[in-house]
Amino acid sequence: MVSCLSNHWQGVEKCQQWAILSNMDDSKMASTGRPVRVGIVSVSDRAHRGVYEDRGGPAVRAYLDDVLVTPWEAVARVIPDEVEVIRDTLAELADTAGCCLVITTGGTGPAPRDVTPEATAAVLDKELAGFGEAMRAVSRPHVPTAILSRQTAGVRGSALIINLPGSPKAVRECLDAVFAGVPDCVDLIGGPYLETDPGRVKAHRPH
Amino acid sequence: MVSCLSNHWQGVEKCQQWAILSNMDDSKMASTGRPVRVGIVSVSDRAHRGVYEDRGGPAVRAYLDDVLVTPWEAVARVIPDEVEVIRDTLAELADTAGCCLVITTGGTGPAPRDVTPEATAAVLDKELAGFGEAMRAVSRPHVPTAILSRQTAGVRGSALIINLPGSPKAVRECLDAVFAGVPDCVDLIGGPYLETDPGRVKAHRPH
Amino acid sequence: MVSCLSNHWQGVEKCQQWAILSNMDDSKMASTGRPVRVGIVSVSDRAHRGVYEDRGGPAVRAYLDDVLVTPWEAVARVIPDEVEVIRDTLAELADTAGCCLVITTGGTGPAPRDVTPEATAAVLDKELAGFGEAMRAVSRPHVPTAILSRQTAGVRGSALIINLPGSPKAVRECLDAVFAGVPDCVDLIGGPYLETDPGRVKAHRPH
Repeated sequence: MVSCLSNHWQGVEKCQQWAILSNMDDSKMASTGRPVRVGIVSVSDRAHRGVYEDRGGPAVRAYLDDVLVTPWEAVARVIPDEVEVIRDTLAELADTAGCCLVITTGGTGPAPRDVTPEATAAVLDKELAGFGEAMRAVSRPHVPTAILSRQTAGVRGSALIINLPGSPKAVRECLDAVFAGVPDCVDLIGGPYLETDPGRVKAHRPH
Repeated sequence: MVSCLSNHWQGVEKCQQWAILSNMDDSKMASTGRPVRVGIVSVSDRAHRGVYEDRGGPAVRAYLDDVLVTPWEAVARVIPDEVEVIRDTLAELADTAGCCLVITTGGTGPAPRDVTPEATAAVLDKELAGFGEAMRAVSRPHVPTAILSRQTAGVRGSALIINLPGSPKAVRECLDAVFAGVPDCVDLIGGPYLETDPGRVKAHRPH
Repeated sequence: MVSCLSNHWQGVEKCQQWAILSNMDDSKMASTGRPVRVGIVSVSDRAHRGVYEDRGGPAVRAYLDDVLVTPWEAVARVIPDEVEVIRDTLAELADTAGCCLVITTGGTGPAPRDVTPEATAAVLDKELAGFGEAMRAVSRPHVPTAILSRQTAGVRGSALIINLPGSPKAVRECLDAVFAGVPDCVDLIGGPYLETDPGRVKAHRPH
């Protein structure tokens, strides 16, 4: 189900890019609270212009549907490879939209238009180098070009921001490499309690 | 044995935080020289206030007692999670107290009060990214939250500074991951010759 | 075959340091194009002064001779461990000499004179942390001091710059750890198409 809301941020209405996508159902919806919000930011000039179907964003959504037991809703964006747009989008999702987790897909490579990591670094309070290391390390044995990905992660206020590559396969593989540590991180930065399906990803909570 | 000395640094006497802890015995004391000095800095608001027993610092000390053959003495500190205090403490241990090695424990996570890595980075001449990478990599397979640790290391003058997490188990595991490279690094930066028990950690000295 | 050309850069003629070394032969030379150029920068005070034979640079050259099928020529330099000299050399090789790949050897450690990584970082448009991680990770199991290497890599314009340690053994091992990802990176930044001997290194080109 996709509901298309007006976007009051920067005064622009771009329904196709700024849709808030809801994927709650009754079994997932907690009786007492609002669903947690997760920003899903697809960074791609071509997907933004509509000449290319965004495949990274849907892969992130499918992964979270599969793994998260806690009711959640996606705040989805499809934006171009522009450092200011990425930066402002990440800041808005963390600061205003109330996302405890913001996941980007795309724009992490070495090409001139790939600027997601620098846009991310510009809005982080604390960089978490271990995420990028872990994601590259799991991909490296079978994807030699994993070393080209500059994906990073970190904290802004009460939001954890994670960069992923653009390919759906890499999205799943990278999330598998780090997701067991995500709920504890969200706890530590004052975010909501995220429950995962332990048959899928067993959250580690040492704190 | 703990000897409590006046602290002339910043004009403050805080014996419980600034104690120079001696753990030399005759068998370890070299006949010709003074023992090498190692700074052990426990970073914890609660331990500093005395509401929580510092466990990281004693774990570092026990590890070095076990591994170092060279006579050494600890310069131990228990300080709060304040970036200026951490920064000034590290600089003082490296520049004035004559430590060739300074090991911090605690304050490496993503929580708002965790600021040890940024305080460390602020005083380093050269960051050594390989330490943090290696420590996270050995922990990752069985501690998924290892990716949340921002621990780093590097050189200031003739001192090697290494961040460790706060848990005693992580202290031992992380030191095991890097200690074989520590004596060569101390050599290269002009510090004293550190000998280890090769049955415990075999120092690698290619230079 | 070594041809010694006058060096017009900074108005200095230093044939032994600024020689353009050609290693083309007819079988390698493409009929239609000029050979691609690869900068090989040996960073060593002692090799620069001639009191020590440069072994890292020849090891890089031998590796590329072994692995690259595309005709190529080396632009070789032997320079001292001076941050400004390294920085200017890297910029000149990328910007003026037309190198699509620039490989440094030496100066990556923690010693006071080791400044290759900071000189490299100063000229990069985009740092590629995955290279240093991968190179340290492959060395770590059998070379505990791999954690002391601060080697990095990244992009400047249409050139990929990679730091390697100085030892010939480390040169080969580190290039083996990353070279399968090099051709794709050079493609992505607008450089020439590099072909490798797939029996030696199988280039991965997902893009």
